[in-house]
This record gives sequence, structure tokens and C-alpha cells, in this order.
Amino acid sequence: MNQVPASPERRFASDNNAGVHPRVLEAITAANSGHATAYGDDPWTHRAEAVFRELFGAPVETFMVWGGTGANVMALATMLSPAGAVLCTDAAHINVDETGAPERVLGAKLIDVPHDNGRLHPEQIREYAHFTGVMHHVQPSVLSITQSTEWGTLYSPEDIGVLCDTAHSMGMTVHLDGARIANATAALGGTVEALRAFTIDAGVDVVSFGGAKNGMMHGEAVVYLDPSLARSAPYVRKQVTQLPSKVRYISAQFVALLEDGLWIKNATHANRMATRLFEQVAGIPGVGLSGPPAVNSLYPVLPVDRIDPLRDWSFFYDWSVHDHQVRWMTSWDTTAADIDAFAEGVAHFLA
Amino acid sequence: MNQVPASPERRFASDNNAGVHPRVLEAITAANSGHATAYGDDPWTHRAEAVFRELFGAPVETFMVWGGTGANVMALATMLSPAGAVLCTDAAHINVDETGAPERVLGAKLIDVPHDNGRLHPEQIREYAHFTGVMHHVQPSVLSITQSTEWGTLYSPEDIGVLCDTAHSMGMTVHLDGARIANATAALGGTVEALRAFTIDAGVDVVSFGGAKNGMMHGEAVVYLDPSLARSAPYVRKQVTQLPSKVRYISAQFVALLEDGLWIKNATHANRMATRLFEQVAGIPGVGLSGPPAVNSLYPVLPVDRIDPLRDWSFFYDWSVHDHQVRWMTSWDTTAADIDAFAEGVAHFLA
Amino acid sequence: MNQVPASPERRFASDNNAGVHPRVLEAITAANSGHATAYGDDPWTHRAEAVFRELFGAPVETFMVWGGTGANVMALATMLSPAGAVLCTDAAHINVDETGAPERVLGAKLIDVPHDNGRLHPEQIREYAHFTGVMHHVQPSVLSITQSTEWGTLYSPEDIGVLCDTAHSMGMTVHLDGARIANATAALGGTVEALRAFTIDAGVDVVSFGGAKNGMMHGEAVVYLDPSLARSAPYVRKQVTQLPSKVRYISAQFVALLEDGLWIKNATHANRMATRLFEQVAGIPGVGLSGPPAVNSLYPVLPVDRIDPLRDWSFFYDWSVHDHQVRWMTSWDTTAADIDAFAEGVAHFLA
Amino acid sequence: MNQVPASPERRFASDNNAGVHPRVLEAITAANSGHATAYGDDPWTHRAEAVFRELFGAPVETFMVWGGTGANVMALATMLSPAGAVLCTDAAHINVDETGAPERVLGAKLIDVPHDNGRLHPEQIREYAHFTGVMHHVQPSVLSITQSTEWGTLYSPEDIGVLCDTAHSMGMTVHLDGARIANATAALGGTVEALRAFTIDAGVDVVSFGGAKNGMMHGEAVVYLDPSLARSAPYVRKQVTQLPSKVRYISAQFVALLEDGLWIKNATHANRMATRLFEQVAGIPGVGLSGPPAVNSLYPVLPVDRIDPLRDWSFFYDWSVHDHQVRWMTSWDTTAADIDAFAEGVAHFLA
Repeated sequence: MNQVPASPERRFASDNNAGVHPRVLEAITAANSGHATAYGDDPWTHRAEAVFRELFGAPVETFMVWGGTGANVMALATMLSPAGAVLCTDAAHINVDETGAPERVLGAKLIDVPHDNGRLHPEQIREYAHFTGVMHHVQPSVLSITQSTEWGTLYSPEDIGVLCDTAHSMGMTVHLDGARIANATAALGGTVEALRAFTIDAGVDVVSFGGAKNGMMHGEAVVYLDPSLARSAPYVRKQVTQLPSKVRYISAQFVALLEDGLWIKNATHANRMATRLFEQVAGIPGVGLSGPPAVNSLYPVLPVDRIDPLRDWSFFYDWSVHDHQVRWMTSWDTTAADIDAFAEGVAHFLA
Repeated sequence: MNQVPASPERRFASDNNAGVHPRVLEAITAANSGHATAYGDDPWTHRAEAVFRELFGAPVETFMVWGGTGANVMALATMLSPAGAVLCTDAAHINVDETGAPERVLGAKLIDVPHDNGRLHPEQIREYAHFTGVMHHVQPSVLSITQSTEWGTLYSPEDIGVLCDTAHSMGMTVHLDGARIANATAALGGTVEALRAFTIDAGVDVVSFGGAKNGMMHGEAVVYLDPSLARSAPYVRKQVTQLPSKVRYISAQFVALLEDGLWIKNATHANRMATRLFEQVAGIPGVGLSGPPAVNSLYPVLPVDRIDPLRDWSFFYDWSVHDHQVRWMTSWDTTAADIDAFAEGVAHFLA
Repeated sequence: MNQVPASPERRFASDNNAGVHPRVLEAITAANSGHATAYGDDPWTHRAEAVFRELFGAPVETFMVWGGTGANVMALATMLSPAGAVLCTDAAHINVDETGAPERVLGAKLIDVPHDNGRLHPEQIREYAHFTGVMHHVQPSVLSITQSTEWGTLYSPEDIGVLCDTAHSMGMTVHLDGARIANATAALGGTVEALRAFTIDAGVDVVSFGGAKNGMMHGEAVVYLDPSLARSAPYVRKQVTQLPSKVRYISAQFVALLEDGLWIKNATHANRMATRLFEQVAGIPGVGLSGPPAVNSLYPVLPVDRIDPLRDWSFFYDWSVHDHQVRWMTSWDTTAADIDAFAEGVAHFLA
Repeated sequence: MNQVPASPERRFASDNNAGVHPRVLEAITAANSGHATAYGDDPWTHRAEAVFRELFGAPVETFMVWGGTGANVMALATMLSPAGAVLCTDAAHINVDETGAPERVLGAKLIDVPHDNGRLHPEQIREYAHFTGVMHHVQPSVLSITQSTEWGTLYSPEDIGVLCDTAHSMGMTVHLDGARIANATAALGGTVEALRAFTIDAGVDVVSFGGAKNGMMHGEAVVYLDPSLARSAPYVRKQVTQLPSKVRYISAQFVALLEDGLWIKNATHANRMATRLFEQVAGIPGVGLSGPPAVNSLYPVLPVDRIDPLRDWSFFYDWSVHDHQVRWMTSWDTTAADIDAFAEGVAHFLA
């Protein structure tokens, strides 16, 4: 066997393993100036709120929160009707990876339907129409979709439009978990118009707008595209433990990320790196990949006995242990050299 | 009337209006280096956990969380028995200032008893002993006290020892909301021994250890002085939406704050500034103050018609509108010049 | 000491110690006829719903439930706004005697204010107006009062009118815990008009209408005087575990109780028996009573060493151990002979 | 077309459409004698508790509750660990037919796995072993199975033994929803030994023991086969709104049902009637049935255009609208004449 190559400087475990983008860190440092009212009545937060209004071209209401699970829980808490349920896929982050936070904090059921490569189809919503009005069943109240999905796939703006129409026609509202909304925007055109097309124009009501996976240190935003749903948001945010005190440090990061298109630049880069990784590893015997990535992650099937040695060399996560499937994820700071080194390692360990 | 003096550079609204201490910000910047596993398995977090063990001289278990309300809710969530209640004062932050987060996330009652200048007395716990074993009443399960209290007062280590003994004798555990634990430590001696005396040595089981009010940007720690109570903590933390992803940036702040005694230095300074403010304003006619501050806040009663003009000049919060009582709070960055300027303003607006 | 007199056939422990009124039991037996759709779509329930509409002279919406705690929790669950709180007295059954069911099932805070002999005053509501709109505080959402109160006292219709006006003016709705609404109605005139005067005419929105303490076997009703609040009631009832399956057996009881005024007859009798008891014991040395009862209970202070011997002879409950105060309660089936026997025992054991 | 035959006196909609067995009603009437302490400290309840101990031949702890959803929720509330989840089938009553009561009252996730004709297999439990110890996932805590199942099928005692062993080996406890435990017992031998074989001997920890579907008016029992799990049960029962006040009327029913084997007699009869119905309709062209019933229900597929006419003639429920499948259910009071009449109607409407 050849000598083991050097492992890449940055690994492919998760985009939340990456650090903070320098311009975001600068913005934090710049915000560290004297006293500012806590809880949001500060210039940085007012500016960030304006930036979100500009981004969506509408009087959206924006609330900074600590983290992604918190953003989802807060959004849903303000959207759910009494005895209402959330409809989502069985692969949804809220369903699998939030330790039951939605059920605990919302006291509501998640109706989880089988995902199609991370996606949900309109007929899976309509299937639950017969629950409506029946007192023995939870009442379908919120549709929650993820864009880009947990499986690294995308809905088209038209897909989301149909989902929203279907949900609305059943009296439901629509939440979009946008932990990787930047990667989706980058993949769908990389413009503000692209963002609007699959969110506000498609009929989405509330977005969890991710920051931490795209170069921020901490902080997400709950954006009410339908501001009428935000009525109880200020109270609910605190009640679900998601009101930051020194919120200016989150707001300043969002301004840095959003104002000059850095958010799309970062995500575009991450997406490209995933494509580059695909191109370098797809041909390696033993790497099972169904096609090029839509955004910033690959889900290869690997020979079972090669997974651990490769992982010990450069860490990544299992995706489906049963299927010997793993996840490789790029981030805003992944370099071409990281890709080259990692691909070399894959070739080495699968040889 | 004389000319209006210049308002102080930093106001006296709250210690969470202050920025981040330069050494803490440096630590954040230093932590921004390459990739690190999210959710706590990183060198900064391991170091911070060790620092907390050194601080308490015991194998305590520490969990970083986003904010103070979250810290309290997470701690209580792991401590409460089924049908259990939290006993606290009616002035407790968890009771008044967290928008019902404990009730919502815990599904538990807070039994709030009248406070004595922010403090709770042992007989107020014993009074609820007759609830125990009666199926129509919630079961007293956790005592939650705040140190320093919401009224800027302190329990002595002996006070807390008796409260803990009383609670434990009734089968309860004890939570200490230490949003300002540094100010308390500074006031009670300013040493690690002082901290231990009123926490681990006194019998406290779990501490919400504050960071953001003492020079950090964000982050608090839930410290299990009794590590046996931490069994479900990893899951509960995520479930109550308090698991940070890029936790290294919180851990690095705690290390910077705790390792060289910066936390006590900051708090000692804030406390001294409050004493200085007291010395300068106590004699001003119209300023009603019962005595020097124990920690970093004053609660003066003011002539009702002077409150708003003074506040418009340099912002602060009402404490009790009914009693014309306000709160002036110092922080780690309050300067002597700020005090002098503010005192001059008080004299001016009360003249 | 004289010979111990015979203890009364029925004791004075609680009106829920009494059995089922013969006419109610007959109605149950009559309802036991063949098959009937479960969950409320049956002739007995339709008739009971009509009876409630006749009673209140309005298109009220009525939902049968299992028990009193369940009725209160269901009513509040449909009334609370997000992050909303329930305002009640510290003596309220929901606050003290329901083992925290409201907090658990509602996830909401009860703001408990000091009671005045069981009652709450309008200024205690207004005191919380400053919470409204402040994101750190729960939002006052529902006022819950009890009629007759837990202390055996009454609000006048005018009292309740002012409480409702105050609550409504603050955007709150009003719940009335009517576990003993029949005793209140009997005491305030004993007519349907009397009932309406302190409920629907006074502005109450939702009533927990008690049955079990007034001659029923089981069952209470949640009556939406404001039917617009009942929109989610069918689903919420089941969700809080309060949807009876064979509901016809509850509905039939309510029809028997309400149709021919039996409910007022029963309650009038219970109230009269309490007055008779007062008349017989008030003069006994050692019996501390402040005045005649408003409804069906007395709260005497007794010599501490005589309480247990008397209780061993004929069981009753402590009211305030600290004050040596006990509760004697009459019910629909208390007889004059029971009173005479009990009064004789009181005289004997206090001699 | 022939003349429409007379519809049966009792329909086949549900066993909860049936009335109360005469002996049970007699027991209620007999219990209506004078005063009795509420909430369970009465002779009828003590007797019922003893009867349950005799039934299981062990010091089980029994708690009477109002209804089936309440029994399930109470049982689970005392069994769940912090951040724990309930594993059940996607057809489970707790998952589909309780309007999200478990999620609301427990604040816990139900992990619902695909059912196999109502049943769950051990490997579906083991599949979730990888959740244990991972902080991003709910922790598998309770296995909940239904016997007889929602699809009218049965687990053998051996099946349940393996499920219990699997669950226990993963640190989980086992709940059995026994809404129709009598029908299962009847089908598996009709003896006390048969009951014990698939419950206490198989390793089940807690049973929701049904009464209302088997001839009672109201009332179910939560039976702790493992009494150590009952520690918080008295408080939790009240907290989840399931503590009856005049509980003697439930206890007396259980005594009547259980003491002389009436519960097995009733269930055996219901099961036999279902078999008789199967024998009479299985051969009718258009009736799709896979085989004879295990307990008291049939799930025929019918020609879609014949369902409504037949239902209008004698009411029953849809089971799967999509598959044109309905449910016919017998009960303790179904008569041979009812079967004959119904079968005649089926033949008529399908002709």
C-alpha cells in the first residue's frame, strides 16, 4: 500500500464545523462599541431588520434568535392553531435532529410523511385533508419544508408554489426551514430574485433564515413574510428561550452577511466545492454516487470496511449506517486544496 | 436653571447593555481557526469544562448554553420530578422576567413566595412541606434562588447552607440562578473560596453560571455541582433549544473570563462603581436610597416628575412605577468619569 | 364527660362525598337503552345542549367533559392567546388544588393575586396592565374567577360585571369556574335570571358548569357563552383527554338536573343546611365563625386539641392547619337529622 | 330489487356505542349509598384494587381514571424519562386517534413505525438503538403496544415476551394499551392465566386496562404491573386531569366486571358474534375479507358504490376510504338476531 497522503486542512464533516468569515468577525468587532440597549432596540438590529425588508422587497418582520432549532420552534409556536399539527417529511430536521424540541415546546404533533430524497409532495398534504374537522385527529395547521433539504436536494420555486397553494387551500400556513437557504439561493440563480421566487413569491409565510452554517458565528432569523403572523412573536421568542440579550452582535453579523451579497458568495463557493469534490471522487471505484450535488453535500455509499479508516484519517458523519452511506459536506471556507487532498485520501483508502 | 451637563458615555440601564471585554473578544478571534467539531467536542469546550472543574474543585459537569433564560429552563428541566414544582420568590427572574418560559417548557408550576428584598427564607420552604404526598397539590421539587438577587442583595454562605439543608430535608434539590454570580463572588470576598462557600460547599446542586452580564458576548453555563443530576442534560439541552452549534466561541469566552480571574476583576469593578455612584448621589436631595449597594445596582426612589427628564438625558429602567423607584446599574466597563457625569446630571435634574 | 353521641349518617367532609340524586340515577338507567353514537352525536347530548341554550337564553356552545379540573383546563386551553397568562386568586382551585394541571397542559403561567376571602378585585387586574406589550412578561390573557368561591363566598352580579369590563378592556377574556355555580345561583335568587345575571349578562365568556358536586355521578360542562371562542373546542377537548366516549350518560344526567330545576332545588337545600348548621353551632363556645354562610360551607376556627377527636368521630377536612381552621360542607343530601347529630357532637367534643 | 330488510336493532359501528351491562348498572346503583370519601379512599376502590391484584396474582398498583386516552397519557407520563420518546406503530390509537394528546400533555415525541396488520416487530425497536446516547435524537424510553390491536389482530404471549425483552434490553419500559384487553384475553384462552401470559409474565410494565368498551359506563384503570413505576402516579393522575372525584362509581363497575368473570364472558360473546358475522358475510359476492376475525371486528373491502347505501341503512365507520375498507364491530350486547339481520342487509345492498 502506498503511503497515507496528508489529510486536508479542513474536513468535510459539516458546514457548522467551519469558523466565522473574516468580514463577519470584523462586523462583530465593529459592533463592540460602547453601550447598546439589549433585546433588539439598537441600531445594528434596526439596520438588520431593514436589510431583511430590502432582501424580500416587502414589509417582512424579522426576529433574531440564537439557533436553528430555536428558530424553527419559535416560528412554529407562532403559527400553530390550537390542536394543530405540523406536517413535514420524516427526514426533516425538526422531526429527527432536534431531540423532540418541537413536541416538547409546542406540545404539538409532527405528522411525518415519507420523504422523496428529502422532498415532500403536494398529495402528501392533501392526504391529511380528511383529518380536518374530525375531533379525534390533530388538525393540519402548518406545513414545514426545508430548502435546501436535509438530503441536499432542492425544490423548484414552482414546487414550493404548489405546496403553498395546497397548504393554504386547506387552511394551513407554510414554514420554510432555511438553515441552508443561502445554498438553495445560490443553486437557484444566486440572486435576490431567486430567493424571492421560492419564498415570498411562492407563498411561504415564515422562514427560518440560517446564518451559522454560512459564515456566521451564531444567530438565525425568523422572518415573517406574512407579518400578520408575527403578532405574538415578541413574547413567544422570549418564552421559548430564544431572545438574545446582546442581540446587536447577531444583527451586525447578518448585516455583514447580507448587505454586499456575501451570503450568496459564501454559499456559491460551498456549492462549487461540492461539485468539485463530486468530479474528483465520482470515478473512484467503490464510491457510489447517484449524480452531482445540488448544493453543498454528497451522500456516497462506500465499501463498509473502508468507512472507518477513511473517517479516522479525516472525520465525517454517517448518513445511513444500514446502507453504508456517509455524508461529505463542504462549507464557505473549503479550499480547492482541501478537495484535492480529500479526493486523494478517498482514492487511497478505497484502493 | 443651569446648563444641562453632558450625559455619561455609558449609561446605567443594565449590565447587558455593555459590550464585550477586549480579552474576551480576543479569545473569540483566536478561536476562529479552522474547523472544529460542533456541539461541544472541541478543544475550547474541553478546556472550559476543565476550567469549571478547577473553579469548583470538584468533578462538576458543565454545559454551555445560549442565554440566561435558557440556562435556567434547562437546569430546571433536568432537576424536576414528575408533578414537581419550583419554589422561588415572586421577584425571581424565572417568575417575572422570562415570559413564562419555565411554565411553557417545563409544564411545571412555579410556587412564588413573597421576597424579602429579593431573598427567600427557609420557613417559606417548610411552609410547603404539607403539599408533599398530597395528590391534589404539586410536589415541591426544586428550590431556585438567585445570587446576587434581582434586588441587588446577597445571601450569605450560611443563609444558602440553611436553605439547601431545608430543601434537601424535604427531598428537594437546589438551583442557583447565577446570572450575576460574579458580582456576588466579588462582594463576598472575590476569591474562588468565596464562590465555593455559597455554592458547592453550601449544598447547591445546579448553577446557572452567567457570562453575558460580565463581559461576554453571549453564553451561559449550566454547572452540575451534583453531577448525578446531569444524566439527561445532553438531551434536554438540545430539547429546550439551548444547544449551540459552534459552541467553541462560547467556551473560548468562558476560558478567557475564568482562567486569570478576569470574571472577578470585572465584577469587582462593577460593584465598586455602584458604590462610587451611591457615594455621589446618596446625598442629593430627592434621591431616596436605603443604603450602599451590595453589588452593582442601586434602586433609588426619585421625585416622580424628575424621572423622565433624567431618563431622557441618560436612559435607565423603572423598577417600581408605583413607588417611583428606578434602577441604576453599573457594569464591567463603567468608568469613574461615567459616574461623575451621571451624578452631576442627577443633581442637575433633581435641583 | 357525657357519653359520645351517635355520629351523623352523612358527614360534612365535602359535597363530592355525597352520592347521586335518585332522579339523576333514574336518568342514567333510562339512557341505558340500546346503541348510541359515542362522543356526542346522540339524542341525550343534543337534548342537553338544547337545555343549556334554554338556560342561558342564548346560542351557547356546550361540551360535556369528565371532571372539574378537566373542564377548567379545557376552557382555558381554548381561551389563552400565545404567551398568554391566566389571572386568578392565590386561593383558586386551578392554582392550588389541581396539581399543576393548568401549567402542565396549558404550558402557561397562572398569575395568582392575593384573594380577599376568595374574591378578586378589579384593581388586581389593572395592576397587570403594564405587562401587556412587554416582551419579558407573560401577556394577561384570561381572567379566571370562581363562583361561589373556594372560601364559600359570592361575587354579586355587579362585581362580576366590573371584573369582566376590566378584563375585556385589557383584551382579556373571562372564565368562570362554576364547580358550585348551582349554590351561587341558589344564593343569588334561585332563578334562571339569577344565573344569567352573574354570567352571560355580566360578560363572562366561558363557564365550567359543575355537575358532580350537585347530585350527578360524574360530568361537568364547558359552556361557551361566547360561542366564537369554541372554534377549537372539539379538538382541544379530546387533546386534553376530556372527551367522554359514552357521553350520553353524562348528558342524560345534566338533562335530569337542569330540566325541572332540580339543580337549584339541590343547591338551595345544601345552602339551607349550611345555614342551619351555622345556627346550631355558632353559639357553641370555642367555635369561631365570622358569620352565616353564603352558600354551603362553614370555615370554623376550633380549639386545636379538639379538632382530631371531632374529626375521628365524623370526618371533615382541615382548611388552614396554621389557623386551626377547618371546613364543614353540606350537600344536596344532608338532612336536618345530620345537622342535629353533628351539632350535638361539636358541643360534646368542645365541652 | 327486493324489499329492504329491517335493519338490526344494534348496529356494528363500535363497541363504545353499546350500553352498560345490567350487572354493571346494578353495581353502580348499589354503590349509590350514602357518603364516601372522594378520590379513591373508599371501600369500592379498595376492593377494586384488591381485585386487580388477584387478577394479576401480584402486588400491582391500580389507578382508576376517566377514559382511554387519559389512561394512556397518564401511564406514559409516569414512564417517560427526560427527553424520552414513545415507540409505537403508525396505527396506534395514541398516534392517530387521540388528537395529539400524548404530544401535548407529555411534551414527548411518538416515534411511529409502520404497522404490520396492527402489530410491531422487535427489529423495529432495535432499529432505534442508535438514537440512544445521541444528543440530537429523542431517547427511546417507552414501547407502547396495543392488544388486541387497532386492526383487530393479536400478539401471542411469546411475541410480547420478545418485544418486552428487546425494549428492556435497550433500557425502555413497556406499556400495553388494553382498551380491548378483554377481547384479547378471551381470544387467547379466556382465562386469568391467558391474561397473565401476555402481560405480567411477558414482561409488560404498565397496562391501560379498558372497561368502557366491554360493558362499563365509564372508567379505565392504569395498572402498574411494575409497582416501582407508580411512585409519581397519584400526582400525575390529577395533573393530567384524570383523577375522578366520585371514583367509587368506577371502582364498583370494575368489581362487577372482574369478580365473576363477566369481563371474559362479555368479550367472548363479542368475539363469537364477530366470527358469526364473518361466517354469514364472507361468502357474499363483493365482500372482501382476508379471513376470520381474531377478536370482535371485521375490516371488509366493499364495492365503493354500495358503502353509503348500506351505511345509511345501519351505521358503521370507514376504515380506509382510499381502499373502500370499512369496519364492522361487535360488542357485548350484539345478538345473533342482529347478525342475521345485518348479514341479510349486506346481501341485499351488495346484490
